[in-house]
Amino acid sequence: MSKNKINTSVLSGFVELLPQGQFLFDNIKNLIEEQYKNAGFVAIDTPIIEKSEVLFAKAGGETETQVYRFQKGDNDLSLRFDLTVPFARYVAEHYNDLTFPFKRYQIGKVFRGERAQKGRYREFFQADIDIVAENQLSIMYDVEIINTMINTISKITTLFNLGPFKVKVSNRKIWDGFFNEFQINDSKKVETMAIIDKRYKFKTEEDFETELKSIINDEKIYKLALSLLKIEFIKNVGISIPAQHHNDFEFVKNNQLMKEGIEELEEVMNHLPDNTEVDLSIVRGLNYYTGSVFETFLTNYKNFGSIASGGRYEHLCDYYTDKSICGVGGSIGISRLFIPLIEEGKITTSDLNKTLLDILIIPQNKNCYNYAIALKNQLNTELNKSISIIFEDKKFKKLMEYANKLNANNVIIIGDDELANNTYTIKNMITGEQITTDMNNLLKILNK
Amino acid sequence: MSKNKINTSVLSGFVELLPQGQFLFDNIKNLIEEQYKNAGFVAIDTPIIEKSEVLFAKAGGETETQVYRFQKGDNDLSLRFDLTVPFARYVAEHYNDLTFPFKRYQIGKVFRGERAQKGRYREFFQADIDIVAENQLSIMYDVEIINTMINTISKITTLFNLGPFKVKVSNRKIWDGFFNEFQINDSKKVETMAIIDKRYKFKTEEDFETELKSIINDEKIYKLALSLLKIEFIKNVGISIPAQHHNDFEFVKNNQLMKEGIEELEEVMNHLPDNTEVDLSIVRGLNYYTGSVFETFLTNYKNFGSIASGGRYEHLCDYYTDKSICGVGGSIGISRLFIPLIEEGKITTSDLNKTLLDILIIPQNKNCYNYAIALKNQLNTELNKSISIIFEDKKFKKLMEYANKLNANNVIIIGDDELANNTYTIKNMITGEQITTDMNNLLKILNK
Repeated sequence: MSKNKINTSVLSGFVELLPQGQFLFDNIKNLIEEQYKNAGFVAIDTPIIEKSEVLFAKAGGETETQVYRFQKGDNDLSLRFDLTVPFARYVAEHYNDLTFPFKRYQIGKVFRGERAQKGRYREFFQADIDIVAENQLSIMYDVEIINTMINTISKITTLFNLGPFKVKVSNRKIWDGFFNEFQINDSKKVETMAIIDKRYKFKTEEDFETELKSIINDEKIYKLALSLLKIEFIKNVGISIPAQHHNDFEFVKNNQLMKEGIEELEEVMNHLPDNTEVDLSIVRGLNYYTGSVFETFLTNYKNFGSIASGGRYEHLCDYYTDKSICGVGGSIGISRLFIPLIEEGKITTSDLNKTLLDILIIPQNKNCYNYAIALKNQLNTELNKSISIIFEDKKFKKLMEYANKLNANNVIIIGDDELANNTYTIKNMITGEQITTDMNNLLKILNK
Repeated sequence: MSKNKINTSVLSGFVELLPQGQFLFDNIKNLIEEQYKNAGFVAIDTPIIEKSEVLFAKAGGETETQVYRFQKGDNDLSLRFDLTVPFARYVAEHYNDLTFPFKRYQIGKVFRGERAQKGRYREFFQADIDIVAENQLSIMYDVEIINTMINTISKITTLFNLGPFKVKVSNRKIWDGFFNEFQINDSKKVETMAIIDKRYKFKTEEDFETELKSIINDEKIYKLALSLLKIEFIKNVGISIPAQHHNDFEFVKNNQLMKEGIEELEEVMNHLPDNTEVDLSIVRGLNYYTGSVFETFLTNYKNFGSIASGGRYEHLCDYYTDKSICGVGGSIGISRLFIPLIEEGKITTSDLNKTLLDILIIPQNKNCYNYAIALKNQLNTELNKSISIIFEDKKFKKLMEYANKLNANNVIIIGDDELANNTYTIKNMITGEQITTDMNNLLKILNK
């Protein structure tokens, strides 16, 4: 390349795929969209650019420094950093035109200008579902969100042989009640939650416990916290506290928030399938969750962390409207999960049973061009397949090389003989079989 | 609304749709994508944010002031203003991994911060197809691009009863050769082309001719230009210059560029269907076109201007690589065309034969929740339909109102009787028919 040419590599933290990888990614994205749609969620699309005052109404701290923010004319603008804040604005703006409970999905790019590091993108797709209503919303919608996530992830892991996965469920009210009970102040609470959130990132459970103890300080509270982390859900029994700590939890009877959290968690678990479990170390960093929270882990790809998470929130639209909107939602980080899997060859088109190109039509000389174009138009009308045509003045061998590079399933060759006899020569590129035949039979072969 | 709430309206020049409109828009976008894919084009996706030096390599003048440009850290960044420049960068960057001729489509948002005015958006979708190759590319690919556009627009206009459309085709070489012939300088050339480009925006053809004459000045050249504008293509005859001017065009024999342009135009037209015509007033504002150019007009919606345009270009990637890449492409401005049609109610879901919600499941009390969830999971496995479920502690009438507001085709009611007898009550919301039946029969009814 000459020195005066502009460097064409994409910016650090940004990503683009070659056509084969893009085909896979789009198929996964469409599959997620189909699952969301079939689960009764409706699509919305909001602008990528929002007024900064809208985006920053609730955000703050780390988020704010990560945002792509700029001035255009008199406007202070920003690129959306998630799909939740624009959704909150959308609900407030169109409140009178929506039917509640309102179930929406949105799949789109979001932008975070954070330090580039492995597994983090600055521009990436998120796929969100949320159910919102005014004032109150049945706990069953928490079940519905988690169920939809399970069905969606299931579809993908089955298709691409990604192995089993587990959804870990908790409820923020339990910890909130617990911290209230012992009058633990907010900064201590935040510190403790941060440690709990990182539980599985410690080398050993002992390391985690040492760290937790050093933060909590109080031996009694520390032991109770540890017991909470060992709570389980047992089918037909319910939430169970390990027996040896049972008496220590007498106080819960009088702790409304903890009682509610445990009841809600039990209710949610009662309606969920087997690949779910209660785990109180799930707290979700973001502080807008107020009830159920969940994260999802692929057993064979633990290093990805949670691939689908979410939870229950209150006061979604408080910055924008007097209406009290609450909801529950979940999100799949599709770029973060699937782009590495595609790039590492862990998922391939052979699982999809679809290819980039079904049929390549090769007219061999100018006389055959109109005949070949008519064929393409007819096949496009009768089949839902990808059909390409090339007009190359090249040796036949070169053209077959081209067909091979494109991974075409079938090649249809049109020469003077085919034109004269109103026939088509079709070669199956997988079996090598080749026959010359008429339109009726050609359609039969291609429809197989 | 309280005074201290943040204004949630989207920025001027930006747009978002209610779920029903979004459903229509997405269906149209998907239909275009399916047509592109079936015509043998493969998808790529490039970042929305690019380095400014990449985007501005070729752009300039008006474009540059319209771009959303900003600094983040040390980087001078911009939002893409079209899909062509990012495509040029992509081809240069991935040159060694692509197979040529390379046929790609890209559908995505682009951004132009121009003065907000009716019919102009600052954030909008474009749907592009291009075919590129190194050094040379058969004129037949110009046919292929226009043909794909015709098939795509045809599909949409038929589905939504938008009436007939016409593709107007020209070739830039004809005008380029003409201006060379009479040694018309560049600035005069640009002025003249600008007038010709606006031909149909003048009140009358006379107004246009007066304006054209005042720019060209020279009577002889003016008359020749006027004759060129009257050139037609006649099937089985070819390009025809009106007889009375025939002798004046003797000079074309020795004008290589004009000869080539006419031959190419004839060749392209020979392979196109009937709803195309030659019109030399099609010049396309952007100056990167070098051969075939085309625009597409809906007969009943002339005020939209061209809804699908494109043409042939050389030197696509010259700013990025030493390889000489040429190509031909076309673009549908889907936001500009379809958002107004949706908002004006000119296209509706009744044409689509699809609705936002197929089935709404209503469990009537808590005992039925698990039975209802199991039903939803089974229907989602067996049908490709959108199925929602609600858990509302409301009177039956209220729930049916909800079903009506969502335009559900079918409602399935689950009460104690259904649970006890392992049945389901299904109500067809269009016919009003209601029956209680078992799973087998339920599936038969829903599959109809």
